[in-house]
Amino acid sequence: MASGMKAIYLDYNASAPLLAEAREAMLSALSIHGNPSSVHASGRAAKASLQKARRQVAALVNARPDHVVFTSGATEAAATLLSPRYSFGRSPLAFSKLYVSQADHPCILAGGRFAPEDVTRLPVSRTGLLDLDVLDDALAGHDKGAGLPLVAIHWANNETGVIQPIAEIATLVKSRGGVLVVDAVQALGRVPVDISDGCGDFLIVSSHKIGGPKGAGAIVAHSDLMMPMPLISGGGQERGHRSGTEAVANIAGFGAAAELAAQRLGEFPVCADLRDRFEQAVLEVAADAIIHGRDAPRLANTLFFTIPGVKAETAQIAFDLAGIALSSGSACSSGKVGKSHVLAAMGAQTDDGAIRVSFGPETEEGVLVRFRDELGAIVARAREKNHPAGA
Amino acid sequence: MASGMKAIYLDYNASAPLLAEAREAMLSALSIHGNPSSVHASGRAAKASLQKARRQVAALVNARPDHVVFTSGATEAAATLLSPRYSFGRSPLAFSKLYVSQADHPCILAGGRFAPEDVTRLPVSRTGLLDLDVLDDALAGHDKGAGLPLVAIHWANNETGVIQPIAEIATLVKSRGGVLVVDAVQALGRVPVDISDGCGDFLIVSSHKIGGPKGAGAIVAHSDLMMPMPLISGGGQERGHRSGTEAVANIAGFGAAAELAAQRLGEFPVCADLRDRFEQAVLEVAADAIIHGRDAPRLANTLFFTIPGVKAETAQIAFDLAGIALSSGSACSSGKVGKSHVLAAMGAQTDDGAIRVSFGPETEEGVLVRFRDELGAIVARAREKNHPAGA
Repeated sequence: MASGMKAIYLDYNASAPLLAEAREAMLSALSIHGNPSSVHASGRAAKASLQKARRQVAALVNARPDHVVFTSGATEAAATLLSPRYSFGRSPLAFSKLYVSQADHPCILAGGRFAPEDVTRLPVSRTGLLDLDVLDDALAGHDKGAGLPLVAIHWANNETGVIQPIAEIATLVKSRGGVLVVDAVQALGRVPVDISDGCGDFLIVSSHKIGGPKGAGAIVAHSDLMMPMPLISGGGQERGHRSGTEAVANIAGFGAAAELAAQRLGEFPVCADLRDRFEQAVLEVAADAIIHGRDAPRLANTLFFTIPGVKAETAQIAFDLAGIALSSGSACSSGKVGKSHVLAAMGAQTDDGAIRVSFGPETEEGVLVRFRDELGAIVARAREKNHPAGA
Repeated sequence: MASGMKAIYLDYNASAPLLAEAREAMLSALSIHGNPSSVHASGRAAKASLQKARRQVAALVNARPDHVVFTSGATEAAATLLSPRYSFGRSPLAFSKLYVSQADHPCILAGGRFAPEDVTRLPVSRTGLLDLDVLDDALAGHDKGAGLPLVAIHWANNETGVIQPIAEIATLVKSRGGVLVVDAVQALGRVPVDISDGCGDFLIVSSHKIGGPKGAGAIVAHSDLMMPMPLISGGGQERGHRSGTEAVANIAGFGAAAELAAQRLGEFPVCADLRDRFEQAVLEVAADAIIHGRDAPRLANTLFFTIPGVKAETAQIAFDLAGIALSSGSACSSGKVGKSHVLAAMGAQTDDGAIRVSFGPETEEGVLVRFRDELGAIVARAREKNHPAGA
């Protein structure tokens, strides 16, 4: 990047920048020495910080604070919830099969504590939406003799931004006697999420996608009558649902970010205007560009596209050199850029891969010019290479 | 606490105050937007921050950096390591039984992924030390037909500070063909820990006991040939051993604290002088006080005592009101003060409970006067109540 050029960050779906308010809350929490399990004043201060964050996160999804169980992040929350063994009050409750979508995040696809043979991956259509008839058929065919069906599905896709019809899915799963875990990581703060109003039995949420720090997440339960057997046991923190000294500062930052997200939820749809202008810029530079998920409802901040003949990975490197951070595929495989399983699930896999632009309401319009210029140069270089002028 | 009185923090074994250097490292990491799995400059900066911390933590225990797997804390590390299923290279490796000590931390006693019936709790003696003959007998009687024996033991006890003879235990476990997991949480930074030199196959370490933030820990492996099956799967972070976006700032703080702990390891023994003066003060106030673990090697910073007729819980509240934070029992059961399982294991349980003073090299001598005065008043009140002057 040329010196003096301001870095542009368009990779919010991988990790959003820390909000000033979250940073402040963290600094305040970091000055507390005590362990939140200690009964002295310093311990109680740490506990109060946790409880404040619990109320803030609960408020964002209209849950009861004591139905929020903090974890180290969404992946741990998924590993906990995707379990064949739950308790229902004082009784055990068994799930015999897990149903997920092929376009889910790897932490859902991993299937948690289910044996691989007990995980069924349901297809999504070309639009990226789960086929509800296929889900209904799968649940209708579920043998409840060995246990109930557990369904896990993402609300919004991290790569395409496609938004699943969660209310319909929740109604369907309920009518078939199943339990629904919703990976709300990318939906949180971006679409209204109200766990009291038909969006499943459990939500998985993450701090660092809404402007909190990396290293905090939560399970939000519709009711605490039914809970998964703990994944991590020991000192009995989080009312026994998740042991281990809490990441007090991270959780405080998560809470502050959640409070802000609740206040700003109405602002998020304005992102669609800039998203549409990004999309227009892509189509101006390359009329043959494919916009993935365009035929489904999408997050207002996400654009995922392929330009035939332009390798997404190469484009990403060029953008990076120009000081523009964006993604080709998702950022959850230890620095490896693999083929997108989401595009494969949609039947839209290409050798060129796809480029993801994701941002926030505070992203300034000015970034568009530099994005378009750089993309234009990238496409021109790729086309020159594929069809040299002298050939 | 009277206004203007400075708070005194003597509860380091529950959580040590955040070091300025750790705070600085965190602030620096918090300014990085990127996800460490992203390949752009911002992602690479986050990754570099992680890798620096990995080198810092590895150096403190003389391990290879790539043998450090970061977790959300020690409890998650224990839940991961205490598993019947490991891999050894590309082959599976099974453990059929877990052997722990009765005085271990609750996260070890919980037994991780072992069925409760496969966990054997070995006794400790009145001194607090594991009886090596009993361990040897247990391992000699272990039936290797179903799998190897896995042994987990704490290096230093969080309540008493008693230090186990880890080198001897490691030799014994090795000679019996077992694998040893050492909970080094309270030992780290306090006694020399060198994983290359006979202290077990795996270490469990924690950030917030050495002056890093709450919410980071690690598994340190002697070799990465043998590793537990992941507890948390998904995006494949930490080379597949622990998925989930890393708590970058916490880990950076952990690294900085580890670097400082390595530099200051030689200073730690000076704590013994202040610890002995605390002990003397206790015995001056109450000649019948019982100093737990006094007949074993102990951490230089820990004093755990019972004064007959003085309820530890009541004393703790009085100390708290006087602005002195200390503990009665350990701080890992969600604010509940239960009876000490460590004292029970030592055959030293009393209805009065016990008071723990734990501190750091930077704790000033001046605190001793206020501690002694307050303890004197507490004991006088208790004795007055038990034997009223007018009675």
